[in-house]
Amino acid sequence: MSSIARIRAAEVRLAGHVRRTPMLRSPDLDALAGRTVWVKAECLQHTGSFKFRGGWAAVSALKDALGVIAYSSGNHAQGVALAARHHGVPAVIVMPRDAPGLKIDNTRALGAEVVLYDRAGGERREDVGEAVAAARGLTLIKPYDNDEVIAGQGTCGLEIAEQVEGVEAADVLVCCGGGGLSSGIALALADQAPGLRVRPVEPAGFDDMARSLAAGARVGNNAASGSLCDAILTQIPGEMTFPILSSLAGPGLVVTDEECCRAMVLAFLRLKIVLEPGGAAALAAALFHGDQIDGDAVIAVATGGNVDPALFARVLADFQP
Amino acid sequence: MSSIARIRAAEVRLAGHVRRTPMLRSPDLDALAGRTVWVKAECLQHTGSFKFRGGWAAVSALKDALGVIAYSSGNHAQGVALAARHHGVPAVIVMPRDAPGLKIDNTRALGAEVVLYDRAGGERREDVGEAVAAARGLTLIKPYDNDEVIAGQGTCGLEIAEQVEGVEAADVLVCCGGGGLSSGIALALADQAPGLRVRPVEPAGFDDMARSLAAGARVGNNAASGSLCDAILTQIPGEMTFPILSSLAGPGLVVTDEECCRAMVLAFLRLKIVLEPGGAAALAAALFHGDQIDGDAVIAVATGGNVDPALFARVLADFQP
Repeated sequence: MSSIARIRAAEVRLAGHVRRTPMLRSPDLDALAGRTVWVKAECLQHTGSFKFRGGWAAVSALKDALGVIAYSSGNHAQGVALAARHHGVPAVIVMPRDAPGLKIDNTRALGAEVVLYDRAGGERREDVGEAVAAARGLTLIKPYDNDEVIAGQGTCGLEIAEQVEGVEAADVLVCCGGGGLSSGIALALADQAPGLRVRPVEPAGFDDMARSLAAGARVGNNAASGSLCDAILTQIPGEMTFPILSSLAGPGLVVTDEECCRAMVLAFLRLKIVLEPGGAAALAAALFHGDQIDGDAVIAVATGGNVDPALFARVLADFQP
Repeated sequence: MSSIARIRAAEVRLAGHVRRTPMLRSPDLDALAGRTVWVKAECLQHTGSFKFRGGWAAVSALKDALGVIAYSSGNHAQGVALAARHHGVPAVIVMPRDAPGLKIDNTRALGAEVVLYDRAGGERREDVGEAVAAARGLTLIKPYDNDEVIAGQGTCGLEIAEQVEGVEAADVLVCCGGGGLSSGIALALADQAPGLRVRPVEPAGFDDMARSLAAGARVGNNAASGSLCDAILTQIPGEMTFPILSSLAGPGLVVTDEECCRAMVLAFLRLKIVLEPGGAAALAAALFHGDQIDGDAVIAVATGGNVDPALFARVLADFQP
């Protein structure tokens, strides 16, 4: 099946379940960025992030699974857990012990069994997830290296193409971990709005995708933790996502944690949406790295809003827009 | 012109300018309330509150005005200011000295001239507004006792009727100050979805509309300030809005400041939207006063999100859901 056919099929399975998230704007953000800034508010998606799209697409594509397992710092976990509950499929989620408490609690509240592992101590979630999957006969739903997950995230791209009708050419900045959302959107736009070009945005120190795109080959990060942007810290680009982005995406952008926090405050003040640090990376790039962007308009995908109240309060107190 | 004809005319003038705000849900909020809770997220409207609708409707209906003047604790001010700027009409806004700094700053940033008055000291905004209007030949746009303002707010009711298609009968809880939004929505629903009934929600101590509806005549509040819900503190129901609600609305509901703060935290956690205290009153009633509500579903209009970061951070720290 072609990529766009798979995305359209996912769109059909998601219809009536996914939320069509709004595209928001503010004259203040436009003034700050020096161009029109469209913000695709995926934090308003079910479970608070775009990950619901891919989770639903993958679970709904299964036939006769005994159960599913996913590893995730939290957002993919919640997306898979909610989709599994709806489909009556047991779900096991492997999460790092240092994930935000809110994400762990929310995943359990969605009926999933949570298995914790030690990210800082060097355990790899892939190993833990594959071991549990093998022992219990569960179907592993990888967070990005999965055709159906990428197709589900691609439905966000279909919406973007419809919502910014009239914008002929623009960069679409996407917060990027393993590259599933960036890839899905890139595939959808290549078919539906070829003037729109995906550009992945990553935190400083975790810019494996940007460096891989520049090098023309997958290269990894040195650190495994140490950024506030927990949702988008991955070791190396996905095996499936990298070739897609290598062919379709523009150069990656890199933002600091401080820029993400300032973008969170601006999203609070001007758009009235809640963003987590990693979910604000693309908006931060749109606002603070405009010199690396061309055109009169830019689209930033605000990918998630699952942030602990204490951290959000600290960001509001410490960072001025 | 009939009320619904005026609302439809406002809808035409607002088309392409107003944001069709989403109707959000969360399984956690449903569980807490014991019924389906639909949240109409008007905090995502331009200027951060529904007031943009009425402001735009009123300014766009003017012919040859020298300028406009409005009195407002902030949200109406911003709505009128943005509409006036777009239409090239000068705007003067009369605001209480104790309004949130964010609202005063935002109003100035929209190009309006701000005149401050002393609410706690007993000055009445109506007197200040009418004096300035007379002296300078400005057209006064009252915040709720104005046909076009009510019609503009009514466009929110048209959207609600479309967005909860399939809900035959339910209460529509609306945060209520002077009653402009409640009236507009009530008029729209009476025509479009007669099974949906507006019920105004007010802060304890400022429940003039609830008591007036119960008494069958307009009665006022004793206090003029002293609630966190600054956006919906009014002295007495509007002369135009009270008869509308007296004929169309169900009994009023009353919530405490603490309940509004808890609703703000839940909206943050579960919906990823930013609400100000007064904008969370209807959600608070849906969540914490379910014993006064009938039916399997309830609709809460989340009216605004213009809250100072310091207050929001304090609410996140002090109130557990």
